[in-house]
Amino acid sequence: MIPFLDLHKINERFEDAFKTEFSKFLDSGYYILGTNVSAFESAFAAYCGVKHCVGVGNGLDALRLLLEGYKILGKLKDGDEVLVASNTFIATILAVKQVQLVPVLIESDATTFNFDISALENRITAKTKVIMPVHLYGQIAPMEAINKIASKAGILVIEDAAQAHGAVYKSTKKAGNLGDGAGFSFYPSKNLGALGDGGAITTNNDELAAVVKKLRNYGTSSKYENEYIGINSRLDEIQASFLNLKLPTLDQDNAKRREIAKRYLSEIKNDKIQLPTYDGSDNHVFHLFVVRVATKTHFVTYLTENNIGALLHYPTAPHQQKALPEFAKLRFPISEKLHQEVVSIPMSPVLTDDEVTSVIKTLNEY
Amino acid sequence: MIPFLDLHKINERFEDAFKTEFSKFLDSGYYILGTNVSAFESAFAAYCGVKHCVGVGNGLDALRLLLEGYKILGKLKDGDEVLVASNTFIATILAVKQVQLVPVLIESDATTFNFDISALENRITAKTKVIMPVHLYGQIAPMEAINKIASKAGILVIEDAAQAHGAVYKSTKKAGNLGDGAGFSFYPSKNLGALGDGGAITTNNDELAAVVKKLRNYGTSSKYENEYIGINSRLDEIQASFLNLKLPTLDQDNAKRREIAKRYLSEIKNDKIQLPTYDGSDNHVFHLFVVRVATKTHFVTYLTENNIGALLHYPTAPHQQKALPEFAKLRFPISEKLHQEVVSIPMSPVLTDDEVTSVIKTLNEY
Ligand SMILES: Cc1ncc(COP(=O)(O)O)c(/C=N/[C@@H]2[C@@H](O)[C@@H](OP(=O)(O)OP(=O)(O)OC[C@H]3O[C@@H](n4cc(C)c(=O)[nH]c4=O)C[C@@H]3O)O[C@H](C)[C@H]2O)c1O
Ligand SMILES: Cc1ncc(COP(=O)(O)O)c(/C=N/[C@@H]2[C@@H](O)[C@@H](OP(=O)(O)OP(=O)(O)OC[C@H]3O[C@@H](n4cc(C)c(=O)[nH]c4=O)C[C@@H]3O)O[C@H](C)[C@H]2O)c1O
Repeated sequence: MIPFLDLHKINERFEDAFKTEFSKFLDSGYYILGTNVSAFESAFAAYCGVKHCVGVGNGLDALRLLLEGYKILGKLKDGDEVLVASNTFIATILAVKQVQLVPVLIESDATTFNFDISALENRITAKTKVIMPVHLYGQIAPMEAINKIASKAGILVIEDAAQAHGAVYKSTKKAGNLGDGAGFSFYPSKNLGALGDGGAITTNNDELAAVVKKLRNYGTSSKYENEYIGINSRLDEIQASFLNLKLPTLDQDNAKRREIAKRYLSEIKNDKIQLPTYDGSDNHVFHLFVVRVATKTHFVTYLTENNIGALLHYPTAPHQQKALPEFAKLRFPISEKLHQEVVSIPMSPVLTDDEVTSVIKTLNEY
Repeated sequence: MIPFLDLHKINERFEDAFKTEFSKFLDSGYYILGTNVSAFESAFAAYCGVKHCVGVGNGLDALRLLLEGYKILGKLKDGDEVLVASNTFIATILAVKQVQLVPVLIESDATTFNFDISALENRITAKTKVIMPVHLYGQIAPMEAINKIASKAGILVIEDAAQAHGAVYKSTKKAGNLGDGAGFSFYPSKNLGALGDGGAITTNNDELAAVVKKLRNYGTSSKYENEYIGINSRLDEIQASFLNLKLPTLDQDNAKRREIAKRYLSEIKNDKIQLPTYDGSDNHVFHLFVVRVATKTHFVTYLTENNIGALLHYPTAPHQQKALPEFAKLRFPISEKLHQEVVSIPMSPVLTDDEVTSVIKTLNEY
């Protein structure tokens, strides 16, 4: 059996270090917003090349607090519109709704799975205040075009970088440093994953960083002094200690993912399976390797029968989810087709060459 | 030095067990909503004597999800009023505001520090839909009177049980089982504290439990199927594993806290220090031991100089916080006076008899 993702094997590489850190953690008697979190915030800011990183409880909260922060800074107000992908994990859209902003869904490009740039441009109105690109599957969104549109319109760009830790845009800047602020998730399955929930905000904006630091901690400016209506969304010390141990291996892990992707791309040869495009650059960190198959259900059954794990990212388009009835009548033919056809095959830095060979062989025999 | 709270010493008692569980946790490769969380949910529900427990990210989210859950069930709607204490940790009030309900603050009783029942009764109008008592400092609120008022008005009662794990009301029911739903916090300093953030909802309402289970997990009814606009607020597996190991000691710890409280109450004899009232029952679990001193600042300096840790719960009344400008003009003379005078002295299950003696001696010499 080749599992879709073997998290135990991924984390086993750090097990001894985790245990040592765990002992130190217990000795410290300090579990919330202590030195592990601040060390991680410094390290991750440096890694992304940004001025500030603020650890939070999860990726959804990271996005939400970014938007809430900009509301407090007076850049956004209730009812403002946020352009988001119609093809994304629903959290991107939930974050927008949770802060009383209005998500406006954008059709996808069939090749990149990301924003259709002309569709994006067409939806800019006086009400549009934010563009929120998601670096889906680990591939950086077309930021040059997006930033150009945003700067012309005088609006914010907030990256959903939950799937793209370490991706480098056009060999210059990293995900997390390509807009006004970015939200990361450290959900265990992410390229940089904690052993529980975790998230972070990155930004070069001093004011925003200061505000979100308060917002994650009940809105307190100092102990028991509440400046804003904040939430409780803190990165746990223990999770930060794991992330501190894993961050140094992220680039190497991403390189390994790209290597596997290159083998998949050159060795999978089956007309029934449509492979993603990839230019070979660091623009993509292959959080997921997603193929398209018209006979999806049949294909997944075949994989299961052949002991290959697979998942669907994602089976249902956000506008067709029960939670978002306001979009039920909208049509995004490309996004809908993608949702009907996408299948994620095994991808992780601990897949062996033999396992990759075996996945390729099974796909070629479909 | 006698610290206000020695969390390292509290948790040291479980250190070997924590390490064993940590190894198992690493071996499992399963970090989110797995067997530790469901085991804790069953154990804590049984402990509280309720049908359901739902683990969430923290105490603030527990309260918020309870209210959100009742909104989804059609029992509450935007703008409905919630009666809350004017003397509480601000999170109680933040939870109400975060779900677009309107907090209505209630004056305190000078003896119990809790609701002034006649003030509570006077504020019931057609708009009032919830009473949200907080079992402040570990003492159960006057639930009989509260439930009577609520049932007459046909409204909900939601306990903020963040400070009262294991308290037993009138020798019958536990905190968490005294209303329509309850929110607990497992912040590390709580009587049952995790080693990071954590929280839980308890309820006997099947429908509510089902809804909040979805709401904590992006609003999903099943994987990738979103029924509601949910949040991400999950109790981490690793934190649940710590709580599972600590829960069996909670009653013993609470008994020890009461023993210390009894010594404080009988041995502290100083006219400048006003002691809390206590009937000797299990109604109180002494999360905090809070005295009142007119010369608070001077007293705290004195304690510090004499190497006794102290904290203020809380220095600023919620209606005087910058975050809540809508209440700035309100006056709650008793709550305000309490905020001016309260000082929390050392209280924990690991204080030694000698330390307690020393605290008493220092207070008596003030
Ligand atoms: C673009 C974007 N924006 C915002 C967010 C929100 O961030 P968040 O709030 O941090 O979740 C996401 C999150 N995105 C992810 C989403 O992509 C999806 O990720 P997924 O990889 O499909 O998740 P999964 O199926 O639970 O795990 C993948 C595999 O790993 C195995 N596993 C998993 C766990 C947790 C384990 O402990 N042990 C295991 O063995 C089981 C599966 O085989 O679902 C998650 C709950 C979200 O956090 C996003 O993609
Ligand atoms: C009624 C009510 N409703 C809702 C809530 C919200 O629940 P929450 O969202 O889970 O916080 C609360 C929370 N209530 C508490 C609140 O009472 C207050 O608690 P506190 O005991 O004063 O907290 P503290 O000063 O941080 O810690 C106490 C002592 O413990 C030491 N310490 C602390 C930590 C964290 C550590 O790792 N190591 C240490 O040595 C330092 C201090 O000496 O502040 C917290 C942040 C809230 O979670 C509440 O009281």
